[in-house]
Amino acid sequence: MKASVIGATGFAGAELLRLLDGHPEAEISYITSESSTGENIATMYPHLKGRIEKELTSMEDLNKIADASDVIFIALPHGHAMKIAKTLKNKDVKIIDLGGDYRFKDVKVFEEWYKTTHEDPDTKAVYGLTELYRDQVKGTNLVANPGCYTTCSILSLVPLIKAGLIETKGIVVDAKSGTTGAGRGLKLGSLYCSVNENFHAYGVANHRHTPEIEQVYSEFAGEPVIIQFTPHLLPVDRGILATCYAQLKPGVTEQQVADAFTNMYKDEYFIRLRGLGACPEIKDVRASNYVDIGWSLDKRTGKIIVMSVLDNLVKGAAGQAVQNMNVMFGLEENTGLKHMPIYP
Amino acid sequence: MKASVIGATGFAGAELLRLLDGHPEAEISYITSESSTGENIATMYPHLKGRIEKELTSMEDLNKIADASDVIFIALPHGHAMKIAKTLKNKDVKIIDLGGDYRFKDVKVFEEWYKTTHEDPDTKAVYGLTELYRDQVKGTNLVANPGCYTTCSILSLVPLIKAGLIETKGIVVDAKSGTTGAGRGLKLGSLYCSVNENFHAYGVANHRHTPEIEQVYSEFAGEPVIIQFTPHLLPVDRGILATCYAQLKPGVTEQQVADAFTNMYKDEYFIRLRGLGACPEIKDVRASNYVDIGWSLDKRTGKIIVMSVLDNLVKGAAGQAVQNMNVMFGLEENTGLKHMPIYP
Amino acid sequence: MKASVIGATGFAGAELLRLLDGHPEAEISYITSESSTGENIATMYPHLKGRIEKELTSMEDLNKIADASDVIFIALPHGHAMKIAKTLKNKDVKIIDLGGDYRFKDVKVFEEWYKTTHEDPDTKAVYGLTELYRDQVKGTNLVANPGCYTTCSILSLVPLIKAGLIETKGIVVDAKSGTTGAGRGLKLGSLYCSVNENFHAYGVANHRHTPEIEQVYSEFAGEPVIIQFTPHLLPVDRGILATCYAQLKPGVTEQQVADAFTNMYKDEYFIRLRGLGACPEIKDVRASNYVDIGWSLDKRTGKIIVMSVLDNLVKGAAGQAVQNMNVMFGLEENTGLKHMPIYP
Amino acid sequence: MKASVIGATGFAGAELLRLLDGHPEAEISYITSESSTGENIATMYPHLKGRIEKELTSMEDLNKIADASDVIFIALPHGHAMKIAKTLKNKDVKIIDLGGDYRFKDVKVFEEWYKTTHEDPDTKAVYGLTELYRDQVKGTNLVANPGCYTTCSILSLVPLIKAGLIETKGIVVDAKSGTTGAGRGLKLGSLYCSVNENFHAYGVANHRHTPEIEQVYSEFAGEPVIIQFTPHLLPVDRGILATCYAQLKPGVTEQQVADAFTNMYKDEYFIRLRGLGACPEIKDVRASNYVDIGWSLDKRTGKIIVMSVLDNLVKGAAGQAVQNMNVMFGLEENTGLKHMPIYP
Repeated sequence: MKASVIGATGFAGAELLRLLDGHPEAEISYITSESSTGENIATMYPHLKGRIEKELTSMEDLNKIADASDVIFIALPHGHAMKIAKTLKNKDVKIIDLGGDYRFKDVKVFEEWYKTTHEDPDTKAVYGLTELYRDQVKGTNLVANPGCYTTCSILSLVPLIKAGLIETKGIVVDAKSGTTGAGRGLKLGSLYCSVNENFHAYGVANHRHTPEIEQVYSEFAGEPVIIQFTPHLLPVDRGILATCYAQLKPGVTEQQVADAFTNMYKDEYFIRLRGLGACPEIKDVRASNYVDIGWSLDKRTGKIIVMSVLDNLVKGAAGQAVQNMNVMFGLEENTGLKHMPIYP
Repeated sequence: MKASVIGATGFAGAELLRLLDGHPEAEISYITSESSTGENIATMYPHLKGRIEKELTSMEDLNKIADASDVIFIALPHGHAMKIAKTLKNKDVKIIDLGGDYRFKDVKVFEEWYKTTHEDPDTKAVYGLTELYRDQVKGTNLVANPGCYTTCSILSLVPLIKAGLIETKGIVVDAKSGTTGAGRGLKLGSLYCSVNENFHAYGVANHRHTPEIEQVYSEFAGEPVIIQFTPHLLPVDRGILATCYAQLKPGVTEQQVADAFTNMYKDEYFIRLRGLGACPEIKDVRASNYVDIGWSLDKRTGKIIVMSVLDNLVKGAAGQAVQNMNVMFGLEENTGLKHMPIYP
Repeated sequence: MKASVIGATGFAGAELLRLLDGHPEAEISYITSESSTGENIATMYPHLKGRIEKELTSMEDLNKIADASDVIFIALPHGHAMKIAKTLKNKDVKIIDLGGDYRFKDVKVFEEWYKTTHEDPDTKAVYGLTELYRDQVKGTNLVANPGCYTTCSILSLVPLIKAGLIETKGIVVDAKSGTTGAGRGLKLGSLYCSVNENFHAYGVANHRHTPEIEQVYSEFAGEPVIIQFTPHLLPVDRGILATCYAQLKPGVTEQQVADAFTNMYKDEYFIRLRGLGACPEIKDVRASNYVDIGWSLDKRTGKIIVMSVLDNLVKGAAGQAVQNMNVMFGLEENTGLKHMPIYP
Repeated sequence: MKASVIGATGFAGAELLRLLDGHPEAEISYITSESSTGENIATMYPHLKGRIEKELTSMEDLNKIADASDVIFIALPHGHAMKIAKTLKNKDVKIIDLGGDYRFKDVKVFEEWYKTTHEDPDTKAVYGLTELYRDQVKGTNLVANPGCYTTCSILSLVPLIKAGLIETKGIVVDAKSGTTGAGRGLKLGSLYCSVNENFHAYGVANHRHTPEIEQVYSEFAGEPVIIQFTPHLLPVDRGILATCYAQLKPGVTEQQVADAFTNMYKDEYFIRLRGLGACPEIKDVRASNYVDIGWSLDKRTGKIIVMSVLDNLVKGAAGQAVQNMNVMFGLEENTGLKHMPIYP
């Protein structure tokens, strides 16, 4: 299985290389970068030395890349994948896009939140939150891999929404992400001295992962769901914690809550239910494809607080992308993804 | 003005020493520690070398300490201050307690949340959130200095509650604190390797600062307010960020919100209104007594999100204690507290 | 291949579990802890959940453990392994000790630096710096796995010592280690607030890894070598950087230096020569078994500066232990150890 | 006393603002930035809000700035100060340059290490390591403020060199600096994800602070001294630790070493001798103007190891600049500089 990575020098791209290198069925074909074309990836990322000593090429000749690939991962900012997928529409190659271009059923939602005209509005992709859409992933050639915050937020509350245990009005998702989530671009806010010993919210009331979360919540609720989503920047490399607040419907018991989670996730390799009273920590899943979920019920307020953690570069990006690849090619879903979390 | 510090070797105690050393009107009298009696504080805390080379004494002979002090700061875990204040009831010495013993109007609330019988239930202290209770602080001999999360949470929403702009039902306070908040005790969860590159919630639905916040919210609301409060542990030394969510009453405008904050805080030296759209960062106030407040309104959800930051050891503990001391002794409120934040 | 871990709850023990879980030929038999006997290791270390849900037993019945094991790893502080190995002397089980007990050819050196009487002075182990003593490791039942600083320091200079390119007098090794090196014990100096944003030397002129480094340097020099070794504590979880200074012999060229490294390491899977002018970073090898080595020559001073990095829990402890296990059992040396470094 | 800061938006510039704001005799006149002319400094650095709400101007009209200033601090990269000082040669204004332009007695050394032609080669400045050159600082109008590594390294060994207790051949200075030392420029190596959990050397055998250290060592030795200097990048905001290695002359005693330090520094407010066996920590002096020094003697090797720490932005830059200003204007040397270290 030949895999190419378009945009291999970002953090998600480099993480894909790590995972593909250790994948028993995958072989890396092309890796591309427009800004570092011709450079050896291991010069830029010395941790790859001796493992992936490949030259970065341009993505200009997409057909050449497609011909040499069974699957292409696109790890670029939004706006690029729509061009690439459009170009390769008739090629026999599977595409997994880690960006936002194909995540929305309604193109207008994309255009409104991303302030961009969609250039390939009629192509429909499968939303690759594997645990929820596995069957559709299996049969598609184009997967829209979910966002990092999104994966965490969706997996936290969908069991309760599906089981009808919580009010879908008034949901608050207060999320915190490690700094790899901000990418490798040179921004003042990404400097060590800006992030270290610091913490703050950003994108309040307007972050692009909001409509993505709402899309799935709404689907499982069977009615439109609007949420309050607030991301924050953590002084750590990797990891997301989503603290999700929802009002329990009257009379809902601890057991019903536990059952909802168990029913939905009991056979999932990558979801570890930590249960009532547990406060999962981001380090519990670092560098792995796991999602750990814990929850608490507050009798005084009638609210449930669900907390879940994942590694934003693995289950929140490259890991889930490989998971989707495995599904698309009929492999065991956890092939090449059984890494233990790195602790401490 | 002679000041003694009971419990000088904890982080709040050491911060009090830093602030008192730089205070033009204060002189440090006794400093105590039961576990390190006889030791020079500068041996334990070399940053104090050349500045505070004082011997730690026992707090056993409280009367001797009181006789040599105009003011006594108590920086001990809850349960101690009630004994000390009771003993010194008839002494002519002002007491500022940084713990929880005297923070509640209703002793039963204390007993329920702290699982302890109050030994001095009839003594009433003034709740020392200086900006709100300045006049009462002026006339008292016993100040209950507020908790760190509490100060941050209260200052964020009280202007809106007082002005009647938000629903008092359904408030969520999602707060994040630096690790000095966990104290200097030897706990596995406080080890570098436990906290670094990590993040998690704790005390979900049962943290002791909850009823303290509710007490003040209720007072300003004129009715009982119940909130959802969730603290988290940040991998930084100092700083708290509280992200507070409330439903705006129908028709409330941006201007009304801005006015509510301005009306309440426009003359406050230590409160810096950062305004609509601002996301204050904990490093903006580090090692200072400032509280920075920003907010956003979400038209889609009708919610307001108020974010405020402070240094948990300064405005959240020792700084506010000194601010109260200044008020009690008729000094300018910012005497000895004009430190600029340390950035980066 | 059944492997047991004596002392499984320390950081090195937990890292052994991670590596053994991913090892295709190994199966974990007993895991022990005297302080947490009866507990599930995954309760203590939730990152292991779903992977290693084993009960911790006591190491009291060593014979039972030995009977159920092909290999026993001892991950305890010094002083324990000598008792265990002595007890199991006649058992058919291979032992790999991660502590200091068997690292010295001359028991008196151990006794002098560790201030302890050796209880098993006549047993000789093989010093398990695999790259240097592979052949002896192959044939032994008792491996003394080297210290973390030691591995890094030895691999840096031995090629130059062996080739006779540097003066063996006046060598300075200035080393810096992540905080996992200090262990999981509850010490004030290991608290987050003690380590974070901090840095300092310790064990100056008396650290126990000094004689261990000197032993190997001396062996390759053919004469006694005395060095200056200074360890420092880094505010990171994992990683060691050793900056090694030595005087080049007159006339030594860049090419001779490069050849010395290449001759010695060209076939080593785990040693990556980064070459002249490279400054390897600890993150380049994090969570992997790699050692990266770079160097610079200073014409003004006639000195060579060799810098090498490794992960103190992997190549500096558990990884090298598994590497030795592989050699002892005739497996490919990198079996179960091909993890890519985690970056960032 | 009116003070202007040329280059106010870098880390050293911003730190100057913090110190000048708290200085009882100073008033900030102009603050300049070419890239942010017209902007309010408090917009860029919100920690200054309510304190320094000044507009950044261009440095184009130097005469206007000089006319409105008693002292001008230049906090720019090298190459600028030589132009500014040349232009203002006949103005009645004191200049303190925080860059490298005027630090060398021999202009050729500057030109060789900085690869730049000096445009003002005949102007002689005083080297502002205040503790060593106080008397000359008093009488000058142009101070070349020393580098951060330099201050730390020089103060560590000069007492021993002056007293003739160490060999001046073979000195090694292994130094480690916090990331503010790398400045606020947008470089890949300064990103949070590049620095966090990482550590590496840089500028090996060619860092520009080398000749600056050698210049002072040579002066006190009375003969040319060549050293090995290696800087490293620490994952902390602030702080430098220099670990200095030198060979003691035969027969030198612990007492002689202690006397050498005491004789030189006993009356220095900002130098705290921590003594034999002490390992000073960078956090012991954070955000203060202190330098803490400890040392160890190694009988086995005959070497002395001197370790000293300072805050690179304070004693290593802005603090020492203000200290020099105080001396130049006849104020108490510690005026406005008595800040306690911030711990933790």
